[in-house]
Amino acid sequence: MTQLNTRLKDAAERVHNALDTLLPKAAGSEARLMDAMRYAALAGGKRLRPFFTLEAGRLFDADEGSLLRAAVAIECVHTYSLIHDDLPCMDDDDLRRGRPTLHRAFDEATALLAGDALLTFAFELLADPATHPDPQMRCLLITALAKAGGAAGMVAGQVADMAGQEIGSDLIAVTRMNRLKTGALINYSIEAGALIGCASDAERTALTRYAHDIGLAFQMVDDLLDAEGVVRDTGKAVGKDKARGKVNFVTVMGADATRDRVAMLASQAKQHLAIFGPRARVLSDAVDFVVERRF
Amino acid sequence: MTQLNTRLKDAAERVHNALDTLLPKAAGSEARLMDAMRYAALAGGKRLRPFFTLEAGRLFDADEGSLLRAAVAIECVHTYSLIHDDLPCMDDDDLRRGRPTLHRAFDEATALLAGDALLTFAFELLADPATHPDPQMRCLLITALAKAGGAAGMVAGQVADMAGQEIGSDLIAVTRMNRLKTGALINYSIEAGALIGCASDAERTALTRYAHDIGLAFQMVDDLLDAEGVVRDTGKAVGKDKARGKVNFVTVMGADATRDRVAMLASQAKQHLAIFGPRARVLSDAVDFVVERRF
Repeated sequence: MTQLNTRLKDAAERVHNALDTLLPKAAGSEARLMDAMRYAALAGGKRLRPFFTLEAGRLFDADEGSLLRAAVAIECVHTYSLIHDDLPCMDDDDLRRGRPTLHRAFDEATALLAGDALLTFAFELLADPATHPDPQMRCLLITALAKAGGAAGMVAGQVADMAGQEIGSDLIAVTRMNRLKTGALINYSIEAGALIGCASDAERTALTRYAHDIGLAFQMVDDLLDAEGVVRDTGKAVGKDKARGKVNFVTVMGADATRDRVAMLASQAKQHLAIFGPRARVLSDAVDFVVERRF
Repeated sequence: MTQLNTRLKDAAERVHNALDTLLPKAAGSEARLMDAMRYAALAGGKRLRPFFTLEAGRLFDADEGSLLRAAVAIECVHTYSLIHDDLPCMDDDDLRRGRPTLHRAFDEATALLAGDALLTFAFELLADPATHPDPQMRCLLITALAKAGGAAGMVAGQVADMAGQEIGSDLIAVTRMNRLKTGALINYSIEAGALIGCASDAERTALTRYAHDIGLAFQMVDDLLDAEGVVRDTGKAVGKDKARGKVNFVTVMGADATRDRVAMLASQAKQHLAIFGPRARVLSDAVDFVVERRF
């Protein structure tokens, strides 16, 4: 696991530094907006999505600079989604990554607009020739991100999540909601690496299946952590899904069945990587990391 | 003015129909989200930005299909900005285009997410090969839209607008705020036509100056209408800027000086079109339309 830990740490540092370099500096009349964007985007976090992009691309010896810019764009979209999710009209959360949420640290209007600006900035980054010399590739990256993040992807998942019990409390409805809400962007983070790496169809299929399984396992572990409620470890408010009448894997299946499902998905995710041989060692180890995390 | 009226009506109809065709249909679990996106985007309005795109492109005999898709993307961004602007944490408006604002007709969370989805959809539209066969052109359109709509453009203007008196009540600060808040997207709507039409540098410069002047005049007329407060004509709540302690051209300069400024800008805007000769007749007449409008 030493290699994995090194790569996780390295990815997090590189993405943090790239965000710091690329995000607009706080200056002039709108310094407060830039400050808010930076407060949210540079707050740390696991940076798991950027890690996936960098590692997926590494399988194909893809250009590191291209992968890093795509990873930064993904982290901007992820950050915007957390900011808007935390707003009073959504989950009304006070705590995120161990600090006050953006609308608590600043104000609601600034948080709303900082989220809007981060989403917009993600597309600006991807469309820039610095991301990839081939505009066709840049358009592919933009199309896939817009689909993953939009009305048929992440936003649809947020709507389903807000609808709570109304969407149905069966496993199919909960799985679908999570495939959209968190799965779509995790998928994209791996897809972006495959796209930039010009993966073959077979390789892309294998990575898509890996992304599917690790994405679902990731969410199930999130739900288990929420149910167990260790606030110090997660750095965010916990035990709230049930209190809010929200459905998740644990409320529907119970903790034991969820744990079984996680183990099954983890094993399956690793099997999908077989075609890459030992090159995919880090992505394989990442499955254990996702499953065993306590934060 | 008959030709102008025909073109305005034609542009509004074509954009409405294209939005209706291109926006995701309301179906399945997230029907409410799609309904909300459509409620806001298909509510009518002047469709002035799409008109500018179509007319600017027409100067260069640009492809109508490309222009129309760019115009639809612009209208999606414009609609998202109105939705978020109307939210309780921003302007807290109840009325828009003569109907309840989106968060009044639906709810805040749905309005927030419908705005997010429309912004994302704009980039999906532009990145699609159906918008233009050349991916380089699609990237140019995306870059320019992201810059116009983001933290150095429209969003910055919204932040400045929320800051109210804090930004300073001098003419320079108010002008800058409006250049960002409404000017940036009006500029882009004309720029998109020039880009797709492969305008020369001189032609682009002339159109940029035209966009600058008509954009400012447009906002000054908005402020005059707000101050005069004819709710039936504008279809939105009026007289609120002053009550909210917001600064605008009329609160800073007074109505008479604002009217003088509008006349000067209108004359100047028309002069910038001189290099196009009679081909720019409709864009020239549009200046009078913007200045004389009562809604």
